[in-house]
Amino acid sequence: MIIVLKENCTIEQQQALVSSIQSHGLSTNLSKGDQVTIIGVIGDKSVLDIDQLKADPRVDNVIPVTESYKLVNRKFHPEDTEFTVKNTVIGPNNLTIMAGPCAIESEEQLMTIARAVKASGATLLRGGAYKPRTSPYSFQGLEEEGLRYMKEAGEETGLATICEITSLKALETAVSYVDMLQVGARNMQNFELLKEVGKCGKPVMLKRGLAATIDEWLNAAEYIMANGNPNVCLCERGIRTYETATRNTLDLAAVLVLKEKTHLPVIVDPSHATGVRAFVKPLTKSAIAVGADGVMVEVHNRPECALSDGPQSLTCQQFDEMMQEIRPYADLVKRSLA
Amino acid sequence: MIIVLKENCTIEQQQALVSSIQSHGLSTNLSKGDQVTIIGVIGDKSVLDIDQLKADPRVDNVIPVTESYKLVNRKFHPEDTEFTVKNTVIGPNNLTIMAGPCAIESEEQLMTIARAVKASGATLLRGGAYKPRTSPYSFQGLEEEGLRYMKEAGEETGLATICEITSLKALETAVSYVDMLQVGARNMQNFELLKEVGKCGKPVMLKRGLAATIDEWLNAAEYIMANGNPNVCLCERGIRTYETATRNTLDLAAVLVLKEKTHLPVIVDPSHATGVRAFVKPLTKSAIAVGADGVMVEVHNRPECALSDGPQSLTCQQFDEMMQEIRPYADLVKRSLA
Amino acid sequence: MIIVLKENCTIEQQQALVSSIQSHGLSTNLSKGDQVTIIGVIGDKSVLDIDQLKADPRVDNVIPVTESYKLVNRKFHPEDTEFTVKNTVIGPNNLTIMAGPCAIESEEQLMTIARAVKASGATLLRGGAYKPRTSPYSFQGLEEEGLRYMKEAGEETGLATICEITSLKALETAVSYVDMLQVGARNMQNFELLKEVGKCGKPVMLKRGLAATIDEWLNAAEYIMANGNPNVCLCERGIRTYETATRNTLDLAAVLVLKEKTHLPVIVDPSHATGVRAFVKPLTKSAIAVGADGVMVEVHNRPECALSDGPQSLTCQQFDEMMQEIRPYADLVKRSLA
Amino acid sequence: MIIVLKENCTIEQQQALVSSIQSHGLSTNLSKGDQVTIIGVIGDKSVLDIDQLKADPRVDNVIPVTESYKLVNRKFHPEDTEFTVKNTVIGPNNLTIMAGPCAIESEEQLMTIARAVKASGATLLRGGAYKPRTSPYSFQGLEEEGLRYMKEAGEETGLATICEITSLKALETAVSYVDMLQVGARNMQNFELLKEVGKCGKPVMLKRGLAATIDEWLNAAEYIMANGNPNVCLCERGIRTYETATRNTLDLAAVLVLKEKTHLPVIVDPSHATGVRAFVKPLTKSAIAVGADGVMVEVHNRPECALSDGPQSLTCQQFDEMMQEIRPYADLVKRSLA
Repeated sequence: MIIVLKENCTIEQQQALVSSIQSHGLSTNLSKGDQVTIIGVIGDKSVLDIDQLKADPRVDNVIPVTESYKLVNRKFHPEDTEFTVKNTVIGPNNLTIMAGPCAIESEEQLMTIARAVKASGATLLRGGAYKPRTSPYSFQGLEEEGLRYMKEAGEETGLATICEITSLKALETAVSYVDMLQVGARNMQNFELLKEVGKCGKPVMLKRGLAATIDEWLNAAEYIMANGNPNVCLCERGIRTYETATRNTLDLAAVLVLKEKTHLPVIVDPSHATGVRAFVKPLTKSAIAVGADGVMVEVHNRPECALSDGPQSLTCQQFDEMMQEIRPYADLVKRSLA
Repeated sequence: MIIVLKENCTIEQQQALVSSIQSHGLSTNLSKGDQVTIIGVIGDKSVLDIDQLKADPRVDNVIPVTESYKLVNRKFHPEDTEFTVKNTVIGPNNLTIMAGPCAIESEEQLMTIARAVKASGATLLRGGAYKPRTSPYSFQGLEEEGLRYMKEAGEETGLATICEITSLKALETAVSYVDMLQVGARNMQNFELLKEVGKCGKPVMLKRGLAATIDEWLNAAEYIMANGNPNVCLCERGIRTYETATRNTLDLAAVLVLKEKTHLPVIVDPSHATGVRAFVKPLTKSAIAVGADGVMVEVHNRPECALSDGPQSLTCQQFDEMMQEIRPYADLVKRSLA
Repeated sequence: MIIVLKENCTIEQQQALVSSIQSHGLSTNLSKGDQVTIIGVIGDKSVLDIDQLKADPRVDNVIPVTESYKLVNRKFHPEDTEFTVKNTVIGPNNLTIMAGPCAIESEEQLMTIARAVKASGATLLRGGAYKPRTSPYSFQGLEEEGLRYMKEAGEETGLATICEITSLKALETAVSYVDMLQVGARNMQNFELLKEVGKCGKPVMLKRGLAATIDEWLNAAEYIMANGNPNVCLCERGIRTYETATRNTLDLAAVLVLKEKTHLPVIVDPSHATGVRAFVKPLTKSAIAVGADGVMVEVHNRPECALSDGPQSLTCQQFDEMMQEIRPYADLVKRSLA
Repeated sequence: MIIVLKENCTIEQQQALVSSIQSHGLSTNLSKGDQVTIIGVIGDKSVLDIDQLKADPRVDNVIPVTESYKLVNRKFHPEDTEFTVKNTVIGPNNLTIMAGPCAIESEEQLMTIARAVKASGATLLRGGAYKPRTSPYSFQGLEEEGLRYMKEAGEETGLATICEITSLKALETAVSYVDMLQVGARNMQNFELLKEVGKCGKPVMLKRGLAATIDEWLNAAEYIMANGNPNVCLCERGIRTYETATRNTLDLAAVLVLKEKTHLPVIVDPSHATGVRAFVKPLTKSAIAVGADGVMVEVHNRPECALSDGPQSLTCQQFDEMMQEIRPYADLVKRSLA
């Protein structure tokens, strides 16, 4: 940590600050420049409060040079994480394909889609039972009924299942029905939910917040790991920018940044990122080429009748075509598809 | 609602779509241009699903011309909302000053600050008992102990009290202790929390999400009102942009947009918006001049010792000076200060 | 074009507005809803001024449904554009690789790099002779001396050459030396420069502005085409967002949007987009997979000694490895590499 | 400047880097932490190239702690700059009001508006003769004819005049006609234009780029001052963000940041920032309250007939009302109005 002192900070004040820092068991290194004087702080900085230092009248700025997250940090855990969900593995050797409807609408709809995506090669079935919707007047999901259909679909097809949970109550219910939990973009910093997800015993996928920095996202994952859950993967789903030609801006370079900073697997969701059906296939190829560990895509048997997010859903046939076309891309990055 | 048809949409397809829309009890108006054909839809569009329409293979785009929120909409409720919190009123005739520490740290700290801000003219005491923190290793708040101190401080000083709640559990606890609840930026789209806040019987302040559009914000407020709570005010606290010279970018024009679109009071938080103590006073004046119904500012008796967000807190003396200086601005906009 | 009327607009006012629009030779279609009344306008809207209409006291909003650009619009020119630069073709059948140093530093540096990138399979040599630098005290380029080296390098290696021009004077000089011109991000809306580039007779690559929408970008390209130059390609180079983990956010979905809206070729620049050497190779693969017509990458013989943008430059050997690795990706999208 | 070394950097490599830095006449200060080792660099860092250092294989990151701009920097020029334009002064004691049409349309239009804004208390007449327009098919300005009208209007009314110049050619023409030049948002980093504006001998107003950071903006101003022109003021006109409810997001906190970092006057343009007529008056008050040295507002005698940006223009009468209402705000900040 580097502390930049104010220009008018006297030598006595500098010494007092240095002593105070050293009293926390830290070493310091004072460097006087012609314009600014800085203090380098060495040791376990978690005993200091950055905000407190920034408020100090002697201090101009505080620049951290190490990260605040530890368990998710690749520095302290260099090997890629891999974990099992039911009978599929998410990690560096596989290309995980999560597919299914945005929202579960009926038993028949879910079973039809589940059979189709299984046949085409997906290994996880996605489907929303609790839908976070901007307007209170939009369809909010089938809730526990939807979860029951997910369980049936998983049992019949052998697919692992993943559902978004939007509250502690949804979490408590969902753990009995599905194999993996998803924390959505709007809840990425719902810290109470993250803590409970950390204790739930199920693998979890944490989506990036609508305007979350990578650093905030990794700290959110740290909440889950710090509460006991090592089976976490991250999902890039586009960020909010000024550009409105696509719903969000898919940040594929974020996959590369994450691969440097963390050992956790990274999934890409091109459906929510763009909101455009025709962009899902090329962006899936693009995500594989850049090094993602998998993709999550929306598939619907009748997208024009979907109750939620129809415009971005592939038909079952389009999904099947996509699966055929992405195999050579998976081969190029030496990842297995089911 | 305007539906723009695809260029290759046949006349038969147009007719089928028009019939389908009319079968929902809506009127339509077909307009053929040289480049595009559009259908104007007239009536209660809540029976249609925009996403479903967008997914329709005959449809190029769907453009809403009316808003999805109703209860918060000024069109249907032209008068400014005003409501009472304990013995103070938030609304068009007053300038509400909410002041207090970012985080409640001890009984003594809170009482000292409460007495000071009361003496200077604040009417609501703010103070965080549940702190949403980016890192799991940062101070997370005193929780119920903090709420008890708030209650004491309110009783001794006569100030109304407001606390952020970050979970249903916090909500359940907080309603017994404080006069008004705050939903923070990170929970603006925690819809389960919004629904319960709608049922809790206490006035509520809804902060704008880190990257929320005004439209999403008003829909979030609609969740609260639709669940029975009419006593809602909004708080502009800066949005996330590319500019890092301040922590967020305070969007004062949003106050004006809100005043057109909704009848709910609007509070401005210059402390969180900028993260810089020296900017709080001038931006408070600026917020008053633009028409805000009040401000929320952080005050600390010893900012350099604050456990959270010290750099943006005013000292009690700075707050007192600010209160003196803003009086003529309040006079210019014909609003009462305590 | 759709004109949404104000709620309080009387029938007489509506009729007057309709008559006024019809007097410009346009047809109208009036649609009265329960909340709003709209006028659909049919015909050549370029005779109307949107800003003027928006200022009209009877008008609430004006929503264009057709684009303002024509020559670059795929609607009126469905086939992909392809054009020749010296002895290489930019278009749908090729994968164009532009490579070279950020800034030309010396004859020896440029010749070394030119020979290396030619040997590895590049077809265009890039190199900056005029460098737009944030600070006036940074290295600004060798100017005409650099252009002379480019000409020599092109003659010796047979590579086509491309240089950024930053002013009319640079343009006048550069046309005698290089085969293709580049308009950089900072000049994307330097309309005087665009007009002259439209008249210069050389192929041109137009980079996306730092925070330009796709619509603004296509209108900027329209300036070039409207002044007589049909040989234009676009270059996505990352946009400015709140995320600072990479220099900019590479918007690969923009390639897909552009392919829908325009017939012009699209190049991707992963070097400037991220500012990180290690990200160039994977993002190049990603750009190919998504459908780009080529990439522009920075290569330097000694990046640690580069006078400009060293951290994002590949070494000549890294570039060679990249070229080997991207061949199977080019095969998958059926594009030829040199 | 702080250089953060890579973890695997050997002691020999550290020493070699330190020696190399010292060979440039700089002092260094090596600080070894348990996780990272950093080198503090003391002295005139302009002899080092940050990009070159970042590309060094031994280096993880380079963090500047001092600014790259010098002449505009308040550190080296603590007093507020003030300068005279014709017979008005821009600086800390005045509130400068620039008013006039977005685009000059005719002699009569300009004279009518000039007389009106003079009568209401403006001191500078604005008016666009060269209009940078997104589409090549929009009205581009009267050019030299417009400048002639400006000169006449200035002579008749006594108002000082300001015009945007969009090219070197426009600059050469404009210097003979107007008292002050404006560099617009789209040209903020048109460095060739900035250099010539630095040599032109006229006061200049530099608008913030559409998505420019404050740091980039100050460096752009440095280009002008470094070329000999000390009479520079800055104009905040809103930045591009994800929010579309207003055309741009007016960043009033930027006024405060600028006042800390630079001695140059700061003007605010609420017309372009929002694009909404009704927001101009309240945001003008807000800008005064926050400490701006003036505002630039658009005024039109018949906004509904304006050829450019009508929706944001005040009528002459609205401008007059605004001038009455802002006087007490000017008094509160102790600034003189004409």
